[in-house]
Amino acid sequence: MRPVIAMQTDFGVGGGSAMRGTCLKVDPELEVYEITHTIDKFNVRAAGRSLHNIVPYWPEGTVFVSVVDPGVGTSRRASVALLKNGSYVVTPDNGTLTLLMDEPGIEAIRIIDEKKNRLRGTEKVSIFHGRDLFAYCAAKLAAGIIDFEGVGPEYPVEEVVRYSEPGYSVTDGKVSGYVSGMMRTFGNLESSIPIEAAEKAGLAPGSDVHVEVMHAGRMYFDRDVPYRPSFGWVEEGEEVVYNSSDGVIGAGINLGDFMSKYGIGSGSGWTIVIRKR
Amino acid sequence: MRPVIAMQTDFGVGGGSAMRGTCLKVDPELEVYEITHTIDKFNVRAAGRSLHNIVPYWPEGTVFVSVVDPGVGTSRRASVALLKNGSYVVTPDNGTLTLLMDEPGIEAIRIIDEKKNRLRGTEKVSIFHGRDLFAYCAAKLAAGIIDFEGVGPEYPVEEVVRYSEPGYSVTDGKVSGYVSGMMRTFGNLESSIPIEAAEKAGLAPGSDVHVEVMHAGRMYFDRDVPYRPSFGWVEEGEEVVYNSSDGVIGAGINLGDFMSKYGIGSGSGWTIVIRKR
Amino acid sequence: MRPVIAMQTDFGVGGGSAMRGTCLKVDPELEVYEITHTIDKFNVRAAGRSLHNIVPYWPEGTVFVSVVDPGVGTSRRASVALLKNGSYVVTPDNGTLTLLMDEPGIEAIRIIDEKKNRLRGTEKVSIFHGRDLFAYCAAKLAAGIIDFEGVGPEYPVEEVVRYSEPGYSVTDGKVSGYVSGMMRTFGNLESSIPIEAAEKAGLAPGSDVHVEVMHAGRMYFDRDVPYRPSFGWVEEGEEVVYNSSDGVIGAGINLGDFMSKYGIGSGSGWTIVIRKR
Repeated sequence: MRPVIAMQTDFGVGGGSAMRGTCLKVDPELEVYEITHTIDKFNVRAAGRSLHNIVPYWPEGTVFVSVVDPGVGTSRRASVALLKNGSYVVTPDNGTLTLLMDEPGIEAIRIIDEKKNRLRGTEKVSIFHGRDLFAYCAAKLAAGIIDFEGVGPEYPVEEVVRYSEPGYSVTDGKVSGYVSGMMRTFGNLESSIPIEAAEKAGLAPGSDVHVEVMHAGRMYFDRDVPYRPSFGWVEEGEEVVYNSSDGVIGAGINLGDFMSKYGIGSGSGWTIVIRKR
Repeated sequence: MRPVIAMQTDFGVGGGSAMRGTCLKVDPELEVYEITHTIDKFNVRAAGRSLHNIVPYWPEGTVFVSVVDPGVGTSRRASVALLKNGSYVVTPDNGTLTLLMDEPGIEAIRIIDEKKNRLRGTEKVSIFHGRDLFAYCAAKLAAGIIDFEGVGPEYPVEEVVRYSEPGYSVTDGKVSGYVSGMMRTFGNLESSIPIEAAEKAGLAPGSDVHVEVMHAGRMYFDRDVPYRPSFGWVEEGEEVVYNSSDGVIGAGINLGDFMSKYGIGSGSGWTIVIRKR
Repeated sequence: MRPVIAMQTDFGVGGGSAMRGTCLKVDPELEVYEITHTIDKFNVRAAGRSLHNIVPYWPEGTVFVSVVDPGVGTSRRASVALLKNGSYVVTPDNGTLTLLMDEPGIEAIRIIDEKKNRLRGTEKVSIFHGRDLFAYCAAKLAAGIIDFEGVGPEYPVEEVVRYSEPGYSVTDGKVSGYVSGMMRTFGNLESSIPIEAAEKAGLAPGSDVHVEVMHAGRMYFDRDVPYRPSFGWVEEGEEVVYNSSDGVIGAGINLGDFMSKYGIGSGSGWTIVIRKR
């Protein structure tokens, strides 16, 4: 039983077919699945967050391939990380691994040796490492043709490129963080605040809270909102705060689009504060 | 040989990856396929129609998962239906099963027992039953970890939530119904009128018909149209009525976009009448 | 070990589910993969180019299904081509096979016998050969239920429908061709000029070149551009010429969108000339 391969890229809808084929050409018995190909273009934070959210829900031992690679063809390291839960992440080492450093943690990391683990016949092309290097090396690893040592030389986990994550803070009765993204197509706000941080602040579903969303000194949302298990606990068109499936606090409108309605964007400049009432 | 799992949601492009992973985590030998993630948001009729059209073309025994769930986290039942052709549908019981009641028919239906068949560690989250309940329970069923009885308590098929479907009517030389949807990206009109109903009215490919499309008292289309086997039987840019792949009567323009051209929408308010000439 | 099936269509995002199901209904042990469902509508050139680019990166023996079929239901041949690398292409014979004729070459071609290799119960429908004929026949072939001879009567490879491909020309220090497409979502220009043709003209990464893009007598781009291994070799926002992953010369902007910026489209009317400096 080979581990499955799961891929994410910023190639857009319909992308990744040469990567799928390359894996199957290495070993037709591999199972290649897609996470998504619609990560924001060149957005290594979005790539890292997607991986961080998804890794716990895939089998241990899964070989993840992440190709969001604004520096393709330059000196950034092309790497394979062994996670502490036994899964692998094949990715440019460009910040994508930041959140995984904390959870589940990185056991060890190696540079892909291009001389051994690059698809032959592609030496003239430097722009498609997704296919020629990442997918190809992931397939050899998943097929058992190479083991982790066979990837290439190890380097210290401390050297993994991290972006600085503003994160969140907790005080009594109050949590603050930033708007980290939009959940799927529904327009729900995802915050950077873990459910556990809200609990530490004494907030829990069933209570009412006050929510502020600010950006560049301007207030976009400033209202009392019920904190409930899910959308259906409030009337259609009403705001609700809830525990999101990604393990963080979310905010939405029952059968509506929260972020569009209030003109809210995402990124570390979009502050969110949630207070007990 | 495990039955395949086939998923549809309204999560949008790139959705469903945590559901795929959850299935493979239950049993890495499962085969998880996508139907689509682009069902209209919150549209249980669209979800039901998609399933109804697709069920006959997948293997008997397939475990379908449908997550179009405007009432997630409320008291609507989370269910598994056993169809009369031996396939299963794991879905909120919210109207999605309406058309399947008639064809192929529902043999029995059970509520998912959350105590036994919910992914552990997700008890704090009420908004992602797609992953934590539906995908997880579907995987246990497909993997043979539970049988149908193991899903949870049975309830009478008569209690399945149905929406009232206006359907169609047949008189001699005339069928009427409504515009039920748009076929794929091509802009072809799909009607609610089964091919068999048209036959009963004495209409068949090769003849010419008259088509009217009305909405809110206004006529949007009112012309004679050839009824032919396919698009290529008329000139480029000409209208044609044909037997659609979903088993209903369709209308389109050869190499054109029928619904955009005439400003036609879909839903039970959009009446279509087809008459013999 | 059955060969994998790999599908491409112009059905749009979320398309192809009935085709996947139909394959699995023939044999649940088949592995069905997607190439893409977002080929330009009715564009047989785009279908052919996609196949041509992808075939070398999938296992030999793969059964490709291509359904871009503006003439569905008319007299165009529904065919299965055996490629010289051992893979199969199941497709309407409508120009889609043009580029594959040259590389890897077509060994033999057969018409699908509708009496034997058409899904039963679909005889009333002429518009969905993707499901009823192409997917169904591909599945029988991949499952070993029929061999190549079992597809239907052979016809001469010389009769394969080809579109005339303007291609490219090489003179000393200069190559010219046309803009054949846009790479994925990134807005990079793909030319019809093979890397080998540029080499023949004496052009290679590391040098500087002059690029002109013209359409209908108007000049859209007329500048010196560095020819480099990849995007990251130039500053953010700068133009670069590179060897594309599809084996042709490409042009892009590092972290930008080349084609949008200069208003460049694709097709044989968009001429590109690359000269040594």
